[in-house]
Amino acid sequence: QYISLRDPGWEVIETRPDRSYLGKFESIFAQGNGYLGLRCTTEESKAGETRGLYAAGCFDRAPGEVTELVNLPDMTRITLLADGQELLDAAPGEDYERRLDLRSGTVIRSLTFSPETPEETGRQPLRIKVISESFVSLNRRHLICRRLRITPSSDITLTVRSGIDGSVTNSGTQHLLPGVKRLIDGKLLRYTTVTAESGIGIAAICAHECSHEAALSYPVTAKRGIFSVSSYRIKAQDTLTLVKYAVLYTANAPDSLLVCGDSGRNDGDSALETLAEKELRSAMHSGFRTLVQENRKTWDTYYQTCTDKVRFIGDSASAGDSVPPKGDIFDALAVHFAQYHLRIMTPFGDSSAGVGAKGLSGEGYRGHSFWDTEMFIFPYFLANFPDTARNLLEYRYHLLDAAREKARDHGYRGAMFPWECARPCDGDVTPAAAGTDIVTGSEMRCLTGELELHITADIAYAVDQYRRASNDIGFMESFGYELILDTALFWVSRCEYVPSKDRYEINDVIGPDEYKEHVDNNAYTNYMAHYNMVLALDLIRRPEAMSEKARRRLDVRYDFDAFAGELEDRIRRLYLPRPNAEGIIPQNDSYLSLGYLDLTPYKNTGRPGSIMEQYNNEQLSHRMVSKQADTVMLLYLFPDLFDEETVRRNFLFYEERTLHDSSLSLCIHSIVASRLGRKEDALRLFRQAAAIDLGGNPHSSDEGIHAAAMGGLWLAARELK
Amino acid sequence: QYISLRDPGWEVIETRPDRSYLGKFESIFAQGNGYLGLRCTTEESKAGETRGLYAAGCFDRAPGEVTELVNLPDMTRITLLADGQELLDAAPGEDYERRLDLRSGTVIRSLTFSPETPEETGRQPLRIKVISESFVSLNRRHLICRRLRITPSSDITLTVRSGIDGSVTNSGTQHLLPGVKRLIDGKLLRYTTVTAESGIGIAAICAHECSHEAALSYPVTAKRGIFSVSSYRIKAQDTLTLVKYAVLYTANAPDSLLVCGDSGRNDGDSALETLAEKELRSAMHSGFRTLVQENRKTWDTYYQTCTDKVRFIGDSASAGDSVPPKGDIFDALAVHFAQYHLRIMTPFGDSSAGVGAKGLSGEGYRGHSFWDTEMFIFPYFLANFPDTARNLLEYRYHLLDAAREKARDHGYRGAMFPWECARPCDGDVTPAAAGTDIVTGSEMRCLTGELELHITADIAYAVDQYRRASNDIGFMESFGYELILDTALFWVSRCEYVPSKDRYEINDVIGPDEYKEHVDNNAYTNYMAHYNMVLALDLIRRPEAMSEKARRRLDVRYDFDAFAGELEDRIRRLYLPRPNAEGIIPQNDSYLSLGYLDLTPYKNTGRPGSIMEQYNNEQLSHRMVSKQADTVMLLYLFPDLFDEETVRRNFLFYEERTLHDSSLSLCIHSIVASRLGRKEDALRLFRQAAAIDLGGNPHSSDEGIHAAAMGGLWLAARELK
Repeated sequence: QYISLRDPGWEVIETRPDRSYLGKFESIFAQGNGYLGLRCTTEESKAGETRGLYAAGCFDRAPGEVTELVNLPDMTRITLLADGQELLDAAPGEDYERRLDLRSGTVIRSLTFSPETPEETGRQPLRIKVISESFVSLNRRHLICRRLRITPSSDITLTVRSGIDGSVTNSGTQHLLPGVKRLIDGKLLRYTTVTAESGIGIAAICAHECSHEAALSYPVTAKRGIFSVSSYRIKAQDTLTLVKYAVLYTANAPDSLLVCGDSGRNDGDSALETLAEKELRSAMHSGFRTLVQENRKTWDTYYQTCTDKVRFIGDSASAGDSVPPKGDIFDALAVHFAQYHLRIMTPFGDSSAGVGAKGLSGEGYRGHSFWDTEMFIFPYFLANFPDTARNLLEYRYHLLDAAREKARDHGYRGAMFPWECARPCDGDVTPAAAGTDIVTGSEMRCLTGELELHITADIAYAVDQYRRASNDIGFMESFGYELILDTALFWVSRCEYVPSKDRYEINDVIGPDEYKEHVDNNAYTNYMAHYNMVLALDLIRRPEAMSEKARRRLDVRYDFDAFAGELEDRIRRLYLPRPNAEGIIPQNDSYLSLGYLDLTPYKNTGRPGSIMEQYNNEQLSHRMVSKQADTVMLLYLFPDLFDEETVRRNFLFYEERTLHDSSLSLCIHSIVASRLGRKEDALRLFRQAAAIDLGGNPHSSDEGIHAAAMGGLWLAARELK
Repeated sequence: QYISLRDPGWEVIETRPDRSYLGKFESIFAQGNGYLGLRCTTEESKAGETRGLYAAGCFDRAPGEVTELVNLPDMTRITLLADGQELLDAAPGEDYERRLDLRSGTVIRSLTFSPETPEETGRQPLRIKVISESFVSLNRRHLICRRLRITPSSDITLTVRSGIDGSVTNSGTQHLLPGVKRLIDGKLLRYTTVTAESGIGIAAICAHECSHEAALSYPVTAKRGIFSVSSYRIKAQDTLTLVKYAVLYTANAPDSLLVCGDSGRNDGDSALETLAEKELRSAMHSGFRTLVQENRKTWDTYYQTCTDKVRFIGDSASAGDSVPPKGDIFDALAVHFAQYHLRIMTPFGDSSAGVGAKGLSGEGYRGHSFWDTEMFIFPYFLANFPDTARNLLEYRYHLLDAAREKARDHGYRGAMFPWECARPCDGDVTPAAAGTDIVTGSEMRCLTGELELHITADIAYAVDQYRRASNDIGFMESFGYELILDTALFWVSRCEYVPSKDRYEINDVIGPDEYKEHVDNNAYTNYMAHYNMVLALDLIRRPEAMSEKARRRLDVRYDFDAFAGELEDRIRRLYLPRPNAEGIIPQNDSYLSLGYLDLTPYKNTGRPGSIMEQYNNEQLSHRMVSKQADTVMLLYLFPDLFDEETVRRNFLFYEERTLHDSSLSLCIHSIVASRLGRKEDALRLFRQAAAIDLGGNPHSSDEGIHAAAMGGLWLAARELK
């Protein structure tokens, strides 16, 4: 209810300041360019906020913790004081609006402050109107710009405190060493630091431009920061315009790596600092207006490049003349919103970092690369920006050594892909613990890294999708073949032969449904493993599948004859669960024998995971309760595997038993509903998927937007037409 | 203007919530017991707050930083939601009061919240009255208690989220490793961690008691914390009472050391965790009412034990019948306020930690022990609690090895005491940098640790004061003699012989006035060094000054004959500046030749240090500008050194040139004014000293109360009578 529309389908609008929704808007209004990601916090700062600026691939590991995406120095806080009184809250009853323009990635905030007056005076209360516009440049990837226009109702002395604050943390974990502060030419503020463990140099620099001459201006340093404090006289109804240019370089960025090998720390004339200062001066030379235009143009090009347009909904609205019914506008908005976030969460032209489960919009999952990138994010880029899709797979290739090591550590062959990832050198960064067991009082072990194996087959599946779409032989020779062969080799070693049944099984896994741990023969996993091995066997057996040169090289590594024999054996005898007498495909060996639980009380609480407030893991494992699409995911990926009646039965059966407690669920169900011709279900599920981030739950996006939902919305929209 | 009085002279009252004053009240309403120190933040949390809990001696050093007092896990935040809406701000127009009762160290806060309602409804707006009472127990040093009474105007579901938050930092520096979370018996929440570098184990545990049965209650863990979330139905006008008991143990506390040698970390049944749980259960068994009474009684005893009462002001008010004039009440309040803070900042029965420059009330000076403890804090305890005064000197003795090493490192003999201290093993922890030079743009070096030598003589002076007052031979034999002899030996080596003048000088120092660096022959320093050497010579020469046994032992170490010869030489020929023709004692060799600067524009800005916004260090060094009492400090310590006319002239001369930009200044000037019979000046300066923390400047106490001012107020009040 806090989202309204004006430019139909292209603007998300916060219509009144409600602090319950602070975290939500920080995440859904996040800005970025695939390298920088900036949470949308307010200039004045609020209690309970999470100020966040992240750079793709800039990870660090603190003592006793897993590697996480570093929260970088904040340059967006700007403290305003009118006659010494800090401007803190929007005055009640005054106009308020904050909106994200998806077309240009700009957040425009317009509000009126009333300073807390120390004494009651008879005078008309002072009102200060502040309009801020901010964007993270899409074409200058290190640049953040913000313009404030400040208009008081009567004469005031305005004091502005603004600079660089290096005291921000990742929920209390500090990854940055105390930095070096420096004032340059009396106006550029610079803060240079380095990540504590990973040693990534960081140079932050900013400067201000103002329409008015400062009456007083001086620098202030804090333990971890440098600021300028400036005072201006503003007449009643006069408008002061302040522009803040902020530049951030991390030494791991591709363009930083070109000039500085290592970190650029503590050296007053380091390459990184020079780069940052140059970029700042260049931006200031261009000026705010030019930077805005450049940025807008780059966004235009982005949206135009999406060749595989989603046309079913609201697109007429973007032309501006015919306004579609309200539901449709929301649908259009949801798709544009998804496209916006898919762009800002995904590194372009850089395969050294993946896509975070929360993009670059928050610290959920500690900024780790999203396990299900191949299923949810990759298809959008494959359809619209194949080079970026390739980058995502190259990132997986960089992880291949870690995957091989993980397989070895677990006693298997080939590549067992890490579940959550950060830097390739980190290997699997899935945290060890996940919440407190309400019954025993202990911390629960997080088992996805150990048991949720399907990621390995999902990657092979995506490589094959890319191969089919691109026919990019260079990619396949450098990366793709190995990815398919090594993953297949893992499955060869992971299948267990059960003599009594003369078949292979894949036991003790977690399938896509994470409420079921230690299950045997998860249908999705078994089918995917099977498919993965078929892909590998095809490469080996089909002469035209690869060049002779590649074949010779890889044969040395994989011993194709023996490998093919093993593959054939596993492919022939791997158990693939079939529909039972009622047409239901068993999600795993035990699922259909579990007790039924009416999920109605938990399905619409607006609190995903609310069932965990009353059941612990052990108790849930005995109930027919799914967290997310599992068998339905299988139906989605292989639409021709079962007849339509079987698909229908399984969709209905599993949807009833699925809480959709994961953002990977609703969109997949929507797609299967679309294909079944269940348009109403499909649209309802699509809209529920959009509501994960755009809906009324104030806290669903606190830790960042849901990357899977963004990709899933686009996938589902495609099928809705 | 935000401080009002009710129980005259014993209560400090915040009469309306003004967020500009957030930091001030966090500091001046700080609570503690000399072991724990707790900043007075609100239950609901505010933007810009500094939540802080500190334990004496619990220091840690982060990479690239100096050692600092660790900000410990927060247990005071209690989030309340009425029908899902968070209670954030006091409703405007409703009664509000927060007061610190100095008699019992209790903070009572009474306010009415109005939740932010999602929609405008026709109904009467919901109002929720909340009264909280909190104290840090003076007799159970690990215990923090808080009781909330919550009364809604209509039926609500109240949700309470409360627990232990280990994500707090020291302005962005995290000293704690991620902890182990544990729910015990379904209701005790425990968080166990350890400091990263110093390895001090920390066990935090808390529990809640409520008048109402919870409709729903479950634990929630965060990256660094554990909380419980409970929901209650409350009828209109019904009152829910919630008590939170919180216990914190650090392994460095004397009572922790008794049971656990090292840290108690990560071991589910460690000694520290057992202690903490036992203490929590004991507190809960006693119950809130008993704990309040116990605490009050201990405070009563404390105030009664102050034998050297300050009677001149307001004391009649405490009897409750005759109300003195308003000014007097403020004066009484100031003295009680000082006594309160002196108690909560000072370790009792523990010589392993000193007194922080901001007590335990904030992170100013990073919690380091106050260089001028002997001049400003020690006299109060010497007069009232001599055992504690002895502890403070023992703490210095623990630093003697570090002082000897510092002397050696600088090429001197004896003990050169560190300026800022933390753990004895840390040595000198004075930070290297102090702000940005507004002219050059670089960080300025902080030179106090290098050049401000008088601390060494000040300690010897205090040892002698203690000796005279206590005749504690045991102390002298174990600690005192060495402190006097080693400090004197330092001066022997530090004096420079100037052949042309046939005298010793002490050059290139900082005197008490820190706006004058690299000066020669600072009068205060030279006189104090002289006195220090006289004390040592007296010990050596006067037969009855020490026992034969002690003499024999120390003779081995110091070689008394040679040492006495050196002392006599230095004492005879050390240059002691005398009044010039105008009767002015030169603060140092160059001071009287510097240019005059009218300080009027800087003296009453309410911003100490405001002159630094327009002058850099280099520029200030050429002006007759003092930061604080320097020559006046000498007049204060040695009232008989100069005749009254000389004292008068110097007082007037230097007071005009002193900005009082340090909290060590006004009270000393007040005392000298008192002695000169300048009662009006004395009272004005005393009240200005009280205003450092109790006055209207919203930010003067952000980083903690001013320990020096607390001790100084008491010293000055004594002389006012």
